[in-house]
Amino acid sequence: MNYFVGVDIGGTNMVCGLTDAQGNTLKLAKIPTEAAQGSAHVIGRLGQAIRELVAEAGVTIEAVGTGVPGFVDPERGLSVLAANLGWRNLPLADELSKELHGIPVFVNNDVRMYVYGETVAGAGRGFKHVLGITIGTGLAAAMINDGQLYYGAGGRAGELGHITLEEEIPYRCNCGLTGCLETVVSASGIARQAKEAIGRGEPTVLAERFPGDEVAKLTAADVSKAYDQGDPVAQRIMEHTGRLLGKGLASAITLFSPEVIIIGGGGAQAGERLFKPMRAEMERTSLDFYWKSLKIKAAERLEDAGVVGSALYAMARLQS
Amino acid sequence: MNYFVGVDIGGTNMVCGLTDAQGNTLKLAKIPTEAAQGSAHVIGRLGQAIRELVAEAGVTIEAVGTGVPGFVDPERGLSVLAANLGWRNLPLADELSKELHGIPVFVNNDVRMYVYGETVAGAGRGFKHVLGITIGTGLAAAMINDGQLYYGAGGRAGELGHITLEEEIPYRCNCGLTGCLETVVSASGIARQAKEAIGRGEPTVLAERFPGDEVAKLTAADVSKAYDQGDPVAQRIMEHTGRLLGKGLASAITLFSPEVIIIGGGGAQAGERLFKPMRAEMERTSLDFYWKSLKIKAAERLEDAGVVGSALYAMARLQS
Repeated sequence: MNYFVGVDIGGTNMVCGLTDAQGNTLKLAKIPTEAAQGSAHVIGRLGQAIRELVAEAGVTIEAVGTGVPGFVDPERGLSVLAANLGWRNLPLADELSKELHGIPVFVNNDVRMYVYGETVAGAGRGFKHVLGITIGTGLAAAMINDGQLYYGAGGRAGELGHITLEEEIPYRCNCGLTGCLETVVSASGIARQAKEAIGRGEPTVLAERFPGDEVAKLTAADVSKAYDQGDPVAQRIMEHTGRLLGKGLASAITLFSPEVIIIGGGGAQAGERLFKPMRAEMERTSLDFYWKSLKIKAAERLEDAGVVGSALYAMARLQS
Repeated sequence: MNYFVGVDIGGTNMVCGLTDAQGNTLKLAKIPTEAAQGSAHVIGRLGQAIRELVAEAGVTIEAVGTGVPGFVDPERGLSVLAANLGWRNLPLADELSKELHGIPVFVNNDVRMYVYGETVAGAGRGFKHVLGITIGTGLAAAMINDGQLYYGAGGRAGELGHITLEEEIPYRCNCGLTGCLETVVSASGIARQAKEAIGRGEPTVLAERFPGDEVAKLTAADVSKAYDQGDPVAQRIMEHTGRLLGKGLASAITLFSPEVIIIGGGGAQAGERLFKPMRAEMERTSLDFYWKSLKIKAAERLEDAGVVGSALYAMARLQS
């Protein structure tokens, strides 16, 4: 039996998982990232967590895969730029491998690993052309083309969240552009719209639930809750958000022609509240041969898609 | 020395070219398609033209590649749907191969072959990630990813012309959607805008040049000519067309991350009149790391990119 470890490195936590070659997660461990203490500290802790995970299971592993936010160089195993971790051209694969007595370590982008995990061992099983998106703090995407990860020049493909729709979206994005899709279509974008509606004095149960400074605590999940209670403001926000996502996806399917769209990330928990207007707009604004046979699926592996994707990516790299 | 024949099948003409393995065209022949007389007639004439081309050159060929409009099945050598030729599930590879005494024939989409030709033996030489577009009667695109043709599910990827921008484009497209990019960004779209301006009585030299029913003859080239004479209507049309193309390309580069965009087709002869506003809008509405190192190049092989692409595609298929 061959075993692998997959790691999903986030700004707050790192999740490590021990998996088999079929993508079954045997054991998961979550530790705080503590990025502020520097990359050596993070890599040291990560090495320790992996050693413990493997020792507890009483197995040996073949390789480790790591999903890192931002830009990566998978060939050289670098974290090229991970702004929220403060990493730049960090030789993550080499340094982590040293912590693990030479076990091979592979590095890729976290969203790509998430979508790879869902494709190989989740909602995308059996599909060769996959568009996976994650709706979280931002909106990200990764593609599988004919069974292979799609990178584009510099590995930068798939920034769906930074498609601009300035006629519809007035917000300036952190990236500097105006009208980026993710300023609306994201968990934070949904919360932002609700806060603005409250600020404008619109009648919504959310205003009662989050009076005064409390409004800072409002999340996308609260908007979903209000939606289910028939709150018209919450319903308008979900409708608007879903519609704009559908518009962005119309462009994406017209250019990529995927067989399936997998939707994951915290914001995906809005489910049909978002997906229904999304589908309607996508179908209204793209050719029917793109969406007639297109499957739209929620991500299946809520906890560990990134971990499993990273582990199976390491397996694939080892074999190639 | 190995030789190949590439064929570019259009609604009006078919161009056949004899090439060597480096993509040099040794001999070209152009014959009317005469699609109305049925596929057997077309294939018979094509077979004869190829036999003559090869006989005149006094060589033998290894394989034939054909670029066909519409949807194709490259694996089975079918023209799945070529609306303007009246073809549906036509076993073009098998039937043409019979005409050629069993020489292998390969079939692919014409735009893909054009972009492949430009990539292997034209403006895209040396690039691995290529977005090629053709501005003709419509607006089409094809992609090369990491040196390989990109197909997407059903080989339908790349319909850039059917990205919809309904806030900016009021026109209904032949495809049934409203706001398709190609209703404006195409040779016919440029001519259409000029005709409308004349119809609205706007002051333009084009109105004097094409009085009354003459307006039907107005082409995109005439708009370019008026532009160069300082005609404000022509300049506004080129500016508008280029800007909308830039908007569409902003989405395309954000999703695909190409290293180079190659622009071909008759409409590309508008050159900087179109490319300047295109670049400005693309840069305004997409992240700089997509366009800072992006090359934008006019297609180099004006006559025979499709022919060379088809021939070299046949060579690649034969070797795989």
